[in-house]
Amino acid sequence: MPLIDTDVHEGFAGIKDLVPYIKAPYKDWLAQGAWRGFSQPFAYTSPGNGNRADVQNEDGSASVSDPAMLKRDLLDEYNVTKAVLTGYFYPTGLKMQYDFASAMASAYNDMVAEKWLSSDPRFAGSIQVNARAPEAAAREIDRMAAHPQMVQVMLPIVDDIAYGHPYYRPIFAAAERNDLVVAFHHTVFAQGPYGMGLHYIERHSLIPLAIQGQVISLILNGVFDEFEKLRFIILEGGFSWLPHTLWRMDREYRQGRVEVPWIKKLPSQHAHERLKLATQPTEDMTTDQLLKVIDLIGTEDLLVFATDYPHFDFDDPDAAIPRSLPDGLRQKILWKNAADLYGFDIPDQHNRATAAE
Amino acid sequence: MPLIDTDVHEGFAGIKDLVPYIKAPYKDWLAQGAWRGFSQPFAYTSPGNGNRADVQNEDGSASVSDPAMLKRDLLDEYNVTKAVLTGYFYPTGLKMQYDFASAMASAYNDMVAEKWLSSDPRFAGSIQVNARAPEAAAREIDRMAAHPQMVQVMLPIVDDIAYGHPYYRPIFAAAERNDLVVAFHHTVFAQGPYGMGLHYIERHSLIPLAIQGQVISLILNGVFDEFEKLRFIILEGGFSWLPHTLWRMDREYRQGRVEVPWIKKLPSQHAHERLKLATQPTEDMTTDQLLKVIDLIGTEDLLVFATDYPHFDFDDPDAAIPRSLPDGLRQKILWKNAADLYGFDIPDQHNRATAAE
Repeated sequence: MPLIDTDVHEGFAGIKDLVPYIKAPYKDWLAQGAWRGFSQPFAYTSPGNGNRADVQNEDGSASVSDPAMLKRDLLDEYNVTKAVLTGYFYPTGLKMQYDFASAMASAYNDMVAEKWLSSDPRFAGSIQVNARAPEAAAREIDRMAAHPQMVQVMLPIVDDIAYGHPYYRPIFAAAERNDLVVAFHHTVFAQGPYGMGLHYIERHSLIPLAIQGQVISLILNGVFDEFEKLRFIILEGGFSWLPHTLWRMDREYRQGRVEVPWIKKLPSQHAHERLKLATQPTEDMTTDQLLKVIDLIGTEDLLVFATDYPHFDFDDPDAAIPRSLPDGLRQKILWKNAADLYGFDIPDQHNRATAAE
Repeated sequence: MPLIDTDVHEGFAGIKDLVPYIKAPYKDWLAQGAWRGFSQPFAYTSPGNGNRADVQNEDGSASVSDPAMLKRDLLDEYNVTKAVLTGYFYPTGLKMQYDFASAMASAYNDMVAEKWLSSDPRFAGSIQVNARAPEAAAREIDRMAAHPQMVQVMLPIVDDIAYGHPYYRPIFAAAERNDLVVAFHHTVFAQGPYGMGLHYIERHSLIPLAIQGQVISLILNGVFDEFEKLRFIILEGGFSWLPHTLWRMDREYRQGRVEVPWIKKLPSQHAHERLKLATQPTEDMTTDQLLKVIDLIGTEDLLVFATDYPHFDFDDPDAAIPRSLPDGLRQKILWKNAADLYGFDIPDQHNRATAAE
């Protein structure tokens, strides 16, 4: 069976890897060490500094900077047909020096294109932007969309941006005119309603709230209505919260739609038609519970598989999407829904076998 | 069948109603008009200024200040056996002038005791506090707990307080030593991860996130472990998000419990044993969907019915808890679970009928 992994975190060994790609005057900034990194305010986070214990980079860095290693340990090991690279370097995290942040996004995109996408046709890419400068982000999307392996725009989830705000419309317009998906992924800055929480497992439990807040913001502020062709994917936020979020928005919409007359469909209908959710991290559900959740979501077409490689809470496809699921549903989650979202041309192996007979 | 309504919003006609109860020097403050009210930053909120269209106070105020009217329109109309008064005047909303806020809580409690609780034995009361002054709140709890109809401490959900923080421990200690339930209810200040949202239906959709954040804060910061006898109830936040929240916390706990060695049970076990959730607002679910959600919660003992009278999104018991549910489950939601939580002595009407034969 084909397998599409929608959330694979490529990286770099150090910020020096971006020096060849960044424009003046920032090449000098980086060369002079003008980068303090993004950090989390917890003394302790998770085992292995966030990575799987078996992910050991030769240079000692925490991210996976070697495409050959990632191909061997993920693509070949798990027979991945397509891997969508999502990064974990999100310049939107920089609240100051927005032109520098936009330049860092461009440098990162050029690095990914040259070092990663060219190395294997199984890789698809995400265009990184600095969302705090929306017009510059739109120009970057237009620039990178020409690359045939770039399939989406990555909007990182930070503490102070709800993407339904009219500020960010130029980014969605650029994604739509370039026929790109819009993906959302949390960052080390994502937080819940009362900040980041006081322990790391609290902070990590709050991530789905940061994501639900984005879905609510996007749909109830009309992004789905204004950009009718655009499709969206939520990464690394799980999915078992979706029935509640859709029911709640539907109830609010039925009661209060006089406030938002530009929203033309029930929120759940918008989501059913144009939202996907990557399954990782799947919680510890039985097959029966998983089937109930999917039934409550109301369609089998929303979930797409992801491993979150190389992070510590990696989902193995067999553990997360059990073989006891009906085969048709399992195929949808493991590859068909993602192939539909991204337009990947993946022959069904069963059909290929039949044709060969 | 008995019926317990766990969320009934009594109020007052105007702040002048508190003048007889408040201590010096604040009696003069109030008499001089030193009260600006709590307001929401939306031009438009909901039909009827937040109330059911049929709730018409003779004095024109938005809250229900007349116990006789509430008894007629809610208790008698719906055959309510017990109504837990929860207020909607939460002095914790005042970020400044904390001694005044604590005095307002005391004045409100005395008003409720004199005007409401004494008027009908069907009323149970909530002790209001200013949570921003935890030691003063604890003293207020000790003072009011002597009233036999006071059954719980009300902790309001505002924008900047996560009750798992060690600041608030004196409040939980006072509730526990007085054998009171701790109730949580949102206020006009509740917000999601990115503030209040840009439209009222967005803000109203974000309320369950503010509540989930509290459940996560309480359990993962050890409040359930430190106060082993304490029981908790969530009001007006719905419940269909609970399966996700419990699964997520359990997954995080299994991965990361080395960070929080004082948590001795799976988060879901803590919730199953000591958390209740009022059903209002129930979303538009079919009976089958409602049964699936309860199955995913993992126990029938957590849900308790509430109308949210007099608010516009009032839940009628028959509409919210359909007669097509199994009778035993319906009895648990409509009264048995709440009777267990609050220790109400309510004879089962079936047993009474049998005994009378």
